[in-house]
Amino acid sequence: MMKVNVCTDKKTYDVVIEQGVLNQAGSIIEKVAPASRYMLIVDEQVATHYLESFLQTFTQTAVHVSVVPSGEQSKSFAQYERLLNDCFEYQLDRSSVIIAFGGGVIGDLAGFVAGTYMRGISFVQVPTTLLAHDSSVGGKVAINLEKGKNMVGLFHQPELVLYDPQLLQTLPEKEWRSGFAEIVKMAFIADRDFLTWLEEEVDSLTSIEGESLVRMIERAVALKARIVQQDEQELGIRGMLNFGHTLGHAIEAELGYGAVTHGEAVLIGMAFALKLSERKHNIDLASDRYIAWFQSLGYTVQIPSSLEITDLLSQMMKDKKARHGTLHYVLLSALGKATIEPITAEELVAELTVEKGGH
Amino acid sequence: MMKVNVCTDKKTYDVVIEQGVLNQAGSIIEKVAPASRYMLIVDEQVATHYLESFLQTFTQTAVHVSVVPSGEQSKSFAQYERLLNDCFEYQLDRSSVIIAFGGGVIGDLAGFVAGTYMRGISFVQVPTTLLAHDSSVGGKVAINLEKGKNMVGLFHQPELVLYDPQLLQTLPEKEWRSGFAEIVKMAFIADRDFLTWLEEEVDSLTSIEGESLVRMIERAVALKARIVQQDEQELGIRGMLNFGHTLGHAIEAELGYGAVTHGEAVLIGMAFALKLSERKHNIDLASDRYIAWFQSLGYTVQIPSSLEITDLLSQMMKDKKARHGTLHYVLLSALGKATIEPITAEELVAELTVEKGGH
Repeated sequence: MMKVNVCTDKKTYDVVIEQGVLNQAGSIIEKVAPASRYMLIVDEQVATHYLESFLQTFTQTAVHVSVVPSGEQSKSFAQYERLLNDCFEYQLDRSSVIIAFGGGVIGDLAGFVAGTYMRGISFVQVPTTLLAHDSSVGGKVAINLEKGKNMVGLFHQPELVLYDPQLLQTLPEKEWRSGFAEIVKMAFIADRDFLTWLEEEVDSLTSIEGESLVRMIERAVALKARIVQQDEQELGIRGMLNFGHTLGHAIEAELGYGAVTHGEAVLIGMAFALKLSERKHNIDLASDRYIAWFQSLGYTVQIPSSLEITDLLSQMMKDKKARHGTLHYVLLSALGKATIEPITAEELVAELTVEKGGH
Repeated sequence: MMKVNVCTDKKTYDVVIEQGVLNQAGSIIEKVAPASRYMLIVDEQVATHYLESFLQTFTQTAVHVSVVPSGEQSKSFAQYERLLNDCFEYQLDRSSVIIAFGGGVIGDLAGFVAGTYMRGISFVQVPTTLLAHDSSVGGKVAINLEKGKNMVGLFHQPELVLYDPQLLQTLPEKEWRSGFAEIVKMAFIADRDFLTWLEEEVDSLTSIEGESLVRMIERAVALKARIVQQDEQELGIRGMLNFGHTLGHAIEAELGYGAVTHGEAVLIGMAFALKLSERKHNIDLASDRYIAWFQSLGYTVQIPSSLEITDLLSQMMKDKKARHGTLHYVLLSALGKATIEPITAEELVAELTVEKGGH
């Protein structure tokens, strides 16, 4: 069984990546995270396809189910409160375990419920999207304010992550693009060999499967685990995981969440950050070649023309990493090597103006 | 200046207990917890009397104020969400500091906001009630579910606690009774000498003032700090702080929050636990004398006759410390010495039946 071990200050846990592991999910969870009661928080689309067979893998009968509507809109106070009331109705106690079965939205929401119910109970993640490989490592859980994504949350590490790549075969291509962007990000900031491998291996997002898929996820998860272990609370180098995210988040916020996937927005941010890195450091990162590769995979790399520079800038300045009008921006000093640098509003406007075509 | 230093895994901070310290609150906070922006979350009644003079003690101009209605009802999801939106509107960032200015409700609510906004920012507590001496040490913050008190929260330690006993002089007697119950509790579970001192010193709740008041609060805070330091996450001995609370919480829940103060309900629970301890351990704890003392101070010591034993029991079994139908109950093995023991529903019913007068 392919495992990545994640060590944090408070907890050590495994991310299991294995074709078909879903068929033994219940028995593995019962062994690694035993509990008198489980609460399964499941995405409604995932429930349609997999709920029945998933529940059959448990020998424990007390598995209470709460179904959550698909989509970013569910990371709301209304869903958060409702799920906490469910916890109470199901009589979960401190030795109960919450299982998050779905994409990143479910992981974030269920993790925040688990992290705050009775001041924190255990949880297990069963991600169902490619993008969720990213949020399932690192313990960041959150819900959204109406005006700010992931503005409310905490760090709460799972007991176990079970990742079955077979689930990904039915994902729409848009979701592949979203998840693959975060994988490419890991390569850009931390592993040039992995970047080279990806560029050689992946010429279409519909053709990644089998051992290549497992290997790709495992590598991205291991890279992320390595960074997170060094900086659990995001006080330093963990910040480099935000490569492409400052602009990406701003684009998501301006277009309205859901109009573009997280990864697609981040990819636009990465293309921008590649160019900015080249100019600011006066180096060649082959940005044109990478941007062409992104486009060949079906990505849009341009900042949407409908968005105003001033609006994007104002969004970026609301970023959690902004301080006193200066952003700490993730750039590359080389392929596979990230740096975090202060960037002023003026520099950003200049760069955005160039990238948006000089108007 | 009278200080108690609290050491936790993550943080070390001072509880300053000093007559008139409110007059220098701003400058102390600016020194100990410097920030580019402050958000002051203040109880509306406290605001009426003290807001203007409090704000004048700051040299920093960016002190944003959010006023919260008085009472337990404010520990709601609605207030929680509203305050988080305020944080965002005020553009608080990770280097901002939230100040909780009010009683236990404000400390719990503002602390939970601080603990989850951007996954946690710093906060300072300025308690205004006697009861709040208790909740301001230990880092427990929470809001309520409609059906369960403090069911949603986390551990988030403040940077500083500023306690001005002068604020207590205007408290209604009911609030003195509420706060004094938690002080007596500390003595019962952890410090027999303190218990003796209290019994000699306090023959009326309206006569505690000056140096006696400071000394009393300081001792209770120091005792609590000692216990919390040994067990920050409430995995073991910290549980003894729940002396009187299992029944107390059940009474509060059954009567409806606000119908009885927290401390008054806890005191009924302590009278009950004293009797239960005597019977179960076959010892003499002078319960009759203590109960007479409580009554002389204006406390009701009987379980309200309107409450049904079955309803109380069902509330107690929902307690966060309940596991699989057995409660972990805090009893005394001697005055000043607590133990935590499993108690079954049957034993509780028997004891409740005796204490409620055999019907």
